[in-house]
Amino acid sequence: MILMGHGSGGRLSQELIAKHFLPKLGNGVLAELGDSAVIGDLALTTDAYVVSPRFFPGGDLGRLAVCGTVNDLAMVGARPIGLTAAFILEEGLALDELDRIVASMAEAAREAGVEIVAGDTKVVARGAADGVFITTSGVGRLVGDFRPAPRRAAAGDAVLVSGTIGDHGVAVMSCRKGIPLEGAFASDVAPIGALVEALRAARVEVHALRDPTRGGVAQSLLEIAHAAGVRVSIDERAIPVKPAVRAACELLGFDPLYVANEGKRVAFVPEADADRAIAALRGHPLGARATRIGTATAGDPGCDLVTPLGARRSLRMASGELLPRIC
Amino acid sequence: MILMGHGSGGRLSQELIAKHFLPKLGNGVLAELGDSAVIGDLALTTDAYVVSPRFFPGGDLGRLAVCGTVNDLAMVGARPIGLTAAFILEEGLALDELDRIVASMAEAAREAGVEIVAGDTKVVARGAADGVFITTSGVGRLVGDFRPAPRRAAAGDAVLVSGTIGDHGVAVMSCRKGIPLEGAFASDVAPIGALVEALRAARVEVHALRDPTRGGVAQSLLEIAHAAGVRVSIDERAIPVKPAVRAACELLGFDPLYVANEGKRVAFVPEADADRAIAALRGHPLGARATRIGTATAGDPGCDLVTPLGARRSLRMASGELLPRIC
Repeated sequence: MILMGHGSGGRLSQELIAKHFLPKLGNGVLAELGDSAVIGDLALTTDAYVVSPRFFPGGDLGRLAVCGTVNDLAMVGARPIGLTAAFILEEGLALDELDRIVASMAEAAREAGVEIVAGDTKVVARGAADGVFITTSGVGRLVGDFRPAPRRAAAGDAVLVSGTIGDHGVAVMSCRKGIPLEGAFASDVAPIGALVEALRAARVEVHALRDPTRGGVAQSLLEIAHAAGVRVSIDERAIPVKPAVRAACELLGFDPLYVANEGKRVAFVPEADADRAIAALRGHPLGARATRIGTATAGDPGCDLVTPLGARRSLRMASGELLPRIC
Repeated sequence: MILMGHGSGGRLSQELIAKHFLPKLGNGVLAELGDSAVIGDLALTTDAYVVSPRFFPGGDLGRLAVCGTVNDLAMVGARPIGLTAAFILEEGLALDELDRIVASMAEAAREAGVEIVAGDTKVVARGAADGVFITTSGVGRLVGDFRPAPRRAAAGDAVLVSGTIGDHGVAVMSCRKGIPLEGAFASDVAPIGALVEALRAARVEVHALRDPTRGGVAQSLLEIAHAAGVRVSIDERAIPVKPAVRAACELLGFDPLYVANEGKRVAFVPEADADRAIAALRGHPLGARATRIGTATAGDPGCDLVTPLGARRSLRMASGELLPRIC
């Protein structure tokens, strides 16, 4: 039976994909399980967006539905060619709410420099959906030999994040009913293709990129570590977390490393390119707080967190429901 | 407020798109409102599938979710490059039901000669969706100068259908609770790219293609007529409808011309190519009952049905809810 945890992006999600999707649909491209599928010089990606509530500090469902998809294209180094959007609307949805969501999509698409070129609208009876669900798909083109991929991460790589972590997940949780945290947070949801372009322009040899959405930075690092067969070591003190986000996580019992982001990315770059990469990222407002958090080494695939006292804790793939319906 | 009719594919759907989507998202490609968007030599399309029930005679949600999307690519003359599929699952869905749906998708994709290369899975709480919704997007490539488009239909064109109409919609209705028609019907859901290839191989100059899904053949003819500025005249006696489907439509109060199909297409071809086109279609099992149903003429955009007694009735765009959640 399907459980909420099957949608968490963690271990149950991976089991669902491995046992119920890949055996039947399996093909080499799908099995890569990258942020986007790569076919020749084209990149294809799709995501369903079901976030609740639909409006949250710093963004809304519409902005999320565009940014999440263009960011997946950016993570394989692709420039967007066009987006499509399919809407499932619940009978009774207020038209002005739909208008606000569509306006947000249009604004985010402009920021990302892409257009929504095809769409579909279905309506289901009252009670058969929760207001509005949007599935956004994207097609992009790979340019030159810039081909980051999780399996290309290598021992010796520097591990970078492009800014503070946990902002999106905490912002969404903060405005759910019964959690008295409103006002102090804003989602980071933004199109981050420009950050990838900054690395490209600085001629950084980017090995791997991932946008740490469901499952957070921990999940992204673990996925890259397993794809590349490297062990990642990160320094707890180096991880940028806003004080209010850290406080909220403590209150709610979440580890910021596992909380979703929607305007950040993790990058693995050669040691020799690390400083140049950080400088390039900091040159863009969305990367102002870019920093190095660790190093990839040879060893069993996995990820260790080194605490300020020097203790070493192995990060585990989250197994259940972290932040339900966070994206 | 969103009404069921906004998802019917008829007049309310068109108003929703014209008033609430195009003004904000508008761009030249989206405004074409074709079955697929065309950007350079690429075709992009997306559709959300919410059919209820999920299993019906002749098919299921999974088969529909693949066929509907590859057929939209075929309607602009594109050959599929890859599909993506995003699943919204309701907590509590039985895994064996999901397995059956995914197996159907795999089988339909094999028939269509395409692979599902990327996917996404989200889970929503019990009651926040109706079992499973699938959004399938597709990317295809246009080949040569074969570029059918609704606006290319021309006065003098022969109007063809590739087989009997109404089968899908009636099959879905037949297995809904309380409608005692089970057993006599089967959906026509199938990938029909091969029919387009047959026309291409026979060097038919295809002006316009459309797969008459929501809103049926009537809606497709009206959309082509308005896009091209032609008047279409169809002969009621020439329209192929299975006797059982006709009987069911009479019982249910539906006009087969407005009932959804999922394995047929309407084609506008020059008079000189009409016989060759029909012969080419009949050479394929899915086109065995292909036939000519009418002619495009100069005149006010619209569509007339000529009855066996010679009376002429103007077809109107359906305004409300025809067959809710039919695709």
